[in-house]
Amino acid sequence: MAAPIAVPPAPLPGTPWALLLEYDGTPFLGWQRQAEGLTVQGVLEEAATRLAGPLPASCAVAGRTDTGVHAAGQAALLHLARDLPAGKVRDALNFHLRPHPVCVLQAVPASLGWHPRFSATGRAYAYRILNRRAPPVLDRHTWHVDRPLDAAAMADAAAVLIGHHDFTSFRATACQAKSPLRTLHRLHVERDGDCITIRAEAPSFLHHQVRNMVGTLKLVGEGRWRPEQVTDALAARDRRAAGPTAPPGGLTLMRVEYPADPFGR
Amino acid sequence: MAAPIAVPPAPLPGTPWALLLEYDGTPFLGWQRQAEGLTVQGVLEEAATRLAGPLPASCAVAGRTDTGVHAAGQAALLHLARDLPAGKVRDALNFHLRPHPVCVLQAVPASLGWHPRFSATGRAYAYRILNRRAPPVLDRHTWHVDRPLDAAAMADAAAVLIGHHDFTSFRATACQAKSPLRTLHRLHVERDGDCITIRAEAPSFLHHQVRNMVGTLKLVGEGRWRPEQVTDALAARDRRAAGPTAPPGGLTLMRVEYPADPFGR
Repeated sequence: MAAPIAVPPAPLPGTPWALLLEYDGTPFLGWQRQAEGLTVQGVLEEAATRLAGPLPASCAVAGRTDTGVHAAGQAALLHLARDLPAGKVRDALNFHLRPHPVCVLQAVPASLGWHPRFSATGRAYAYRILNRRAPPVLDRHTWHVDRPLDAAAMADAAAVLIGHHDFTSFRATACQAKSPLRTLHRLHVERDGDCITIRAEAPSFLHHQVRNMVGTLKLVGEGRWRPEQVTDALAARDRRAAGPTAPPGGLTLMRVEYPADPFGR
Repeated sequence: MAAPIAVPPAPLPGTPWALLLEYDGTPFLGWQRQAEGLTVQGVLEEAATRLAGPLPASCAVAGRTDTGVHAAGQAALLHLARDLPAGKVRDALNFHLRPHPVCVLQAVPASLGWHPRFSATGRAYAYRILNRRAPPVLDRHTWHVDRPLDAAAMADAAAVLIGHHDFTSFRATACQAKSPLRTLHRLHVERDGDCITIRAEAPSFLHHQVRNMVGTLKLVGEGRWRPEQVTDALAARDRRAAGPTAPPGGLTLMRVEYPADPFGR
């Protein structure tokens, strides 16, 4: 935490942009810039620097996705050192982002005080399991589970987790959130042919919460756990009581909600 | 065509397998084996040879997809030199196919006389256009068209092509089919957000027919052609009267129909 300051901070020079981003997480060590290795923040800030010169501030984001996690609707706040038209910001960033699998779907001048993380009131994730013997070929953003899963049993078990709970059993042991309490609005399991999609919606999630819930639901789908055991795992408030963490490649951040959506969706 | 023979051909040694295949066409020079370069037939026959020794015959297929065209439900007939259980054929071929983006969804003993191409009574293709400014990132099996397309106008124009017609204007000039007459059962255009999907179904298609129809519908979507001009293009029976060939990467062979489906779908 920063020390208290006596005067309000001066606005950053340049123009603040709200960006709606899509990326394939496969080649990245997650969102957050690191000393070494490819990150989404790193390639985006590099593209922005090429477009408008050195950045007045680093790029803020709605959700710092982990290594290998994808996004279809990530939101970020980027300050550019010079003024440019919105269409130019989007197209020129996309030009400079090549060949990395990241693109700017929308660039909109950010309202004063809008912050991609602190202004957000909801997050929606989708986790996809490819449930068949043959490996993923056309759709690689899936968890390949080759033993048959009972999606109806998974849906029953998922219902147990919906609501306001202490999700200690489903948070990463390294999770830095102050409270393990979260309100899960939706955890929906649906099979379409060989693909099982799990949709999770909440105001916010704990670290690894979606992947830990999915890893637990998979145990139910395999018949190794009865749906009631998910109730017990939740009540235990102990990470060791729930199932393993599902791999990152099946997870996509679909959407971030704002009371006044900057992207007009 | 082969010369007439006086005696029926001896059955090939080994077991005939009906294979249901999925592949990402991006790295391939199409289905058909070539003297040089990666082909789907080439990597499949190589995997089969590694599994069961030299093949008694080359692999037959329902549709010889072009360079860069994908398949979600291609059908093939493969003779293996030794007997193996069906599950083993599927799993072992998938093992030997790695790391190529081809997989065997199903392997079923083929009925006597079943041929993936000559027994087929229908083909279904899907062509997808990503219609937005930002380049494709999460879904790369699309044609990226960055100017807005009017999908409703494209749907109107598509309706003109449905039915039994001389499709000379929409066949590749190199097409070797004897007749340019085909019966198009379905040509459906639908927008879902930024993605426009064109679904085409017919007993069979001419060479490049789907891509040439899509390239023409795109002219209508852009407003460069009125839907009625598609009627004129069809009537002209001249390849130069229709639009350009859409790129291969948006096209996927979805399904091949058989009166008695070997794959039990």
